[in-house]
Amino acid sequence: MSDLTARAEELDAADELAAKRAEFVLDDVVYLDGNSLGALPAVVPGRVADVVSRQWGELRIRSWEESGWWTAPERIGDRIAPLLGAAPGQVVVGDSTSVNIFKALVAAVRMAGDGRDEILVDATTFPTDGYIAASAARLTGRTLRPVAPAEVPDALGDRTAAVLLNHVDYRTGRLHDLPALTAAAHRAGALAVWDLCHSAGALPVGLDEHGVDLAVGCTYKYLNGGPGSPAYLYVRAEHQDRFDSPLPGWNSHAEPFGMRPEYEPAPGALRGRVGTPDILSLLALEAALDVWDGVSVEAVRAKSLALTDFFLECVSAYVPSGRVESVTPVPHAERGSQVALRCADAGEVMKRLIGRGVVGDFRAPDVLRFGFTPLYVGFADVERAARVLGEVLD
Amino acid sequence: MSDLTARAEELDAADELAAKRAEFVLDDVVYLDGNSLGALPAVVPGRVADVVSRQWGELRIRSWEESGWWTAPERIGDRIAPLLGAAPGQVVVGDSTSVNIFKALVAAVRMAGDGRDEILVDATTFPTDGYIAASAARLTGRTLRPVAPAEVPDALGDRTAAVLLNHVDYRTGRLHDLPALTAAAHRAGALAVWDLCHSAGALPVGLDEHGVDLAVGCTYKYLNGGPGSPAYLYVRAEHQDRFDSPLPGWNSHAEPFGMRPEYEPAPGALRGRVGTPDILSLLALEAALDVWDGVSVEAVRAKSLALTDFFLECVSAYVPSGRVESVTPVPHAERGSQVALRCADAGEVMKRLIGRGVVGDFRAPDVLRFGFTPLYVGFADVERAARVLGEVLD
Repeated sequence: MSDLTARAEELDAADELAAKRAEFVLDDVVYLDGNSLGALPAVVPGRVADVVSRQWGELRIRSWEESGWWTAPERIGDRIAPLLGAAPGQVVVGDSTSVNIFKALVAAVRMAGDGRDEILVDATTFPTDGYIAASAARLTGRTLRPVAPAEVPDALGDRTAAVLLNHVDYRTGRLHDLPALTAAAHRAGALAVWDLCHSAGALPVGLDEHGVDLAVGCTYKYLNGGPGSPAYLYVRAEHQDRFDSPLPGWNSHAEPFGMRPEYEPAPGALRGRVGTPDILSLLALEAALDVWDGVSVEAVRAKSLALTDFFLECVSAYVPSGRVESVTPVPHAERGSQVALRCADAGEVMKRLIGRGVVGDFRAPDVLRFGFTPLYVGFADVERAARVLGEVLD
Repeated sequence: MSDLTARAEELDAADELAAKRAEFVLDDVVYLDGNSLGALPAVVPGRVADVVSRQWGELRIRSWEESGWWTAPERIGDRIAPLLGAAPGQVVVGDSTSVNIFKALVAAVRMAGDGRDEILVDATTFPTDGYIAASAARLTGRTLRPVAPAEVPDALGDRTAAVLLNHVDYRTGRLHDLPALTAAAHRAGALAVWDLCHSAGALPVGLDEHGVDLAVGCTYKYLNGGPGSPAYLYVRAEHQDRFDSPLPGWNSHAEPFGMRPEYEPAPGALRGRVGTPDILSLLALEAALDVWDGVSVEAVRAKSLALTDFFLECVSAYVPSGRVESVTPVPHAERGSQVALRCADAGEVMKRLIGRGVVGDFRAPDVLRFGFTPLYVGFADVERAARVLGEVLD
């Protein structure tokens, strides 16, 4: 047994989250793509079958009340809230991340007032954030200015209405300083809108504590909600009365079944709702959230850092020198829960890794991306992934 | 056996769609609420179980390609297209009806050009259409003018950018004249946007034939896609190059995995996509569409009219005079696939009907609403529903 294999065994034996793995459907593959699509929690198939066959098939329309369909967006929002460091009543689930970015940014611009004519957006962000921010700017008559997160403090000013930032960069895995950047936005009188797609469920976010104004995130990565499961929107309690949605669908009405021609927004985070909620996907997500029972985000973060540290160590040991270069920051304070390795011919290398049972993903032009999901990835997986990578590149 | 019971038996025996009923999960209830939530097609539970357990659980991320997840929005759009009278390549599925109304209206206003500063909206419409239209008007700097559909031809003019109309009124069941109103909009140089929620799957729509510019609709009523299943957007082929979405998410990009900072819209109806599609709900809908194999919309329409005619006849025979008043038009050309009866204490009456196994719904303030879904409602159901209504009101 090699030294690293032995180390992996020790680390797995001491892992307080190790038992969580049994709550997922897994096989012999080392699945390091949970930052793209989380694995299937074992409780989900039975719950979805019940939703389809009994709630829809037998109760039909009665389920809107009797099976709690109507209140699912806010009920499931409250299940997610603790993972974001948010008190209840501030998170609502529904629509895609892109649609929620649109709601959040337009609402932020409106709250900032007419005197502020600029939106800052993370220039390194996942592209949809920039595309949607451009549309929000165009429709509200603001100017969009892309800046690197490190330059945000200098770019903020009297003109800034809002800044949209990604908590963790989807490509490099860099973790941005949410408390400091939020505080900088506030000092300039601007609102801070955070995209948590690559952080929530992998590390503490602390939305309430750090005064974040609005946030969005997907639920199919670290939250394991299933392919394309609905995203969430966080609206800080103190802003809810001023949250003026650009998508004021009937589900956000104070009296949705009053069928009134005049729009009157519901109180609270409910006004982030739009149309009829997508029940099958929502309730699959609700079931998937059961795996978080008894789990602290702090324990997840500690294991996440141990996993990525160990992966970098194993890569150094196994991969021939010069074949890969990590673009993920070394300091813990700057690292999310993934490791990105720059590598010649990365697309082809990833195909060979997948053929050998190690699943990560490829991001153009030259990045191998490995996500570490502490609820179901162990240290032996990490050692094996690095070892196979070394063999593939040898 | 009463005369009406015998008639129902004859009509059921001659019903060419009668065998379709066996493709749904039904029980002894007379379900006349399929215009709110369609019944469960029997094929769906098995298909959803496969999507969850095999496609997600076993193939995981590979399913985006191997299970056809990525192309589901346009593939399922092409399955729906024939029901709308649309050639392939013009319908894309995803997001809620409200979100699609927003896309369609903003895009329509942009196509109409800066000289046209007014949006007309059906004043009698389902409320969300009006709320979303108001937001689209506000964000594009247009004025929103609610008008009754009958007054639309007179209200159209040089200022009109677009008109948003409901094909069938959700409350009264009135069918509006889509060909004539679309032609009137075009004569004024405006675009016609239709909401098909209460017509598609119940009667021929003829989007291509009648020159409709843009249309949206839900899939959980007559299309039986399941609670809150994704809506669809129709973008007429000749408009697609000019379709300028207010929600240009990465899924609508010409090269979504290029992760490019500049937005470049995909060709075709794809540019109506936004974020990551909601796969569980989409593929449940895809399975549900199997029941349409071999069914012509014309046959559905013929049976729908026979059902509502027979219901009105049975209500006349069974319900004490003066207790209900139909607000659904008598002429076939003005009738959708539901019957709405005004009735004192309608909320309480509907509760008693449901207690007796006849499920319709109540719409404030005083309407009993009964939807007739020709694929699984028969004439004996109709006779029983009217008979029980008569007993409840006696």
